[in-house]
Amino acid sequence: MDNRPIGVFDSGVGGLTVVKALRQTLPGEDIIYLGDTARVPYGTKARSTVTRFSIECVQFLLKFNIKQAVVACNTASSCAVETLKKRFDVPVMGVIEPGARDAVKISSSKNKKIAVIATRSTVKSNAYQKHIHKLDKSVMVLQQPCPLFVPFVEENMIKGAIIESVVKEYLKAIKSKNVDSIILGCTHYPLLKSIIAKYLKGVHIIDSSKSISIEIKRTLEKKQMLSNKKQGILKCFVTDDANNFKTMALMFLDKDISIKRVQI
Amino acid sequence: MDNRPIGVFDSGVGGLTVVKALRQTLPGEDIIYLGDTARVPYGTKARSTVTRFSIECVQFLLKFNIKQAVVACNTASSCAVETLKKRFDVPVMGVIEPGARDAVKISSSKNKKIAVIATRSTVKSNAYQKHIHKLDKSVMVLQQPCPLFVPFVEENMIKGAIIESVVKEYLKAIKSKNVDSIILGCTHYPLLKSIIAKYLKGVHIIDSSKSISIEIKRTLEKKQMLSNKKQGILKCFVTDDANNFKTMALMFLDKDISIKRVQI
Repeated sequence: MDNRPIGVFDSGVGGLTVVKALRQTLPGEDIIYLGDTARVPYGTKARSTVTRFSIECVQFLLKFNIKQAVVACNTASSCAVETLKKRFDVPVMGVIEPGARDAVKISSSKNKKIAVIATRSTVKSNAYQKHIHKLDKSVMVLQQPCPLFVPFVEENMIKGAIIESVVKEYLKAIKSKNVDSIILGCTHYPLLKSIIAKYLKGVHIIDSSKSISIEIKRTLEKKQMLSNKKQGILKCFVTDDANNFKTMALMFLDKDISIKRVQI
Repeated sequence: MDNRPIGVFDSGVGGLTVVKALRQTLPGEDIIYLGDTARVPYGTKARSTVTRFSIECVQFLLKFNIKQAVVACNTASSCAVETLKKRFDVPVMGVIEPGARDAVKISSSKNKKIAVIATRSTVKSNAYQKHIHKLDKSVMVLQQPCPLFVPFVEENMIKGAIIESVVKEYLKAIKSKNVDSIILGCTHYPLLKSIIAKYLKGVHIIDSSKSISIEIKRTLEKKQMLSNKKQGILKCFVTDDANNFKTMALMFLDKDISIKRVQI
């Protein structure tokens, strides 16, 4: 039994999709969340920059005596997880491995074609493809960067003709390839799930935030490090204005939360 | 005569529209450009965050013994110029005042209606409205945030049906109001000028980057601080990867430039 908190960080507000999934899967765990909103987004920036920012985020979370660090951001997971694992004693888990594992499970009995949509940096890192091929080399992986999805979600323009055109523009190549599953390789993308599902009828959609929360549960159980609390506490920190974050947080979490601004 | 360089900073690559205008108006001036690409964008972030970043940018430019600091970014101009002017000895000029002056000049003989399109932070600061009303209180100012324009420009999606729908969505209220002029209150927006002009037929478009370059020339002439060089040198610095910036810089400057990465 271990009642220390789980530390989660993201480039901004999107990582709250992971927090939501964690709270559903592990309601007794305390969670410390850091959104690096002053420097968001990470997905358009260089691997070295994302790694530097990620190290600073984990250093902040360590102040709370966390038992597990969770990298909610797909870009940071793709670019920085290996460095973070080497640098820190606390266990670090990113979203790539759990998402890749779930996709391979589904594809193994089908066409063996997996699509990955993500930011430019995540696609460039090839992280999803590498992890998928570690599990099954015979799977075909189609990667597509969808850089406009993040700003559309952040503007709450997640319905209507314009976003539908953008979805069609980005996913038309994937639609033509008869894939089994598509990995939503960015924490913002689950908010576009219904439009994506409508356009890619019959394709299994994998939300990495769900995959990682199940993986975290499995890991903590195995190490007998689950909390014995009935209801965990969520504390949120951001590097930009807390009020801006609050409005967005409601979109992701359907719940009012307390947020504090910090400089890291 | 003063051959020290002019220092220009922006949140990212957009400020190169100001550099381009400066080089056309003042070809003999050396220019040091800093794009804070590791923390771009500024336009979605809080005034206090933008001010902190802007101070760090000017501190970097001061290392080059600049004679004039130019804030190319409209958001930084709206949120931080007053603080920068108080804090530093070097003269600081932002894009808001010159843009507002040009708009008032045009409107004074017409309907006296000016539209301002900009980022959320610039609109929230009310900076353009304040400066316009300092010059002429009877002018009506319509402000419209267009937060998706920046990502569309950065994705080079500046032509076609999707961006045309976004332009229509943002500018339909302005179109119905019979304005004399529209201020492009963000350095990225000049790249959408032709689509905006097509949609708002007959409306005078004011590009703040041109306004500020003329204003800088006037100021340096008055103080007898112009350079006597025939051809000035441009040096660019960025806080994220230089290669990513290079591709984008070509869109803005139509010219290959040398860029160095720095940490500020």
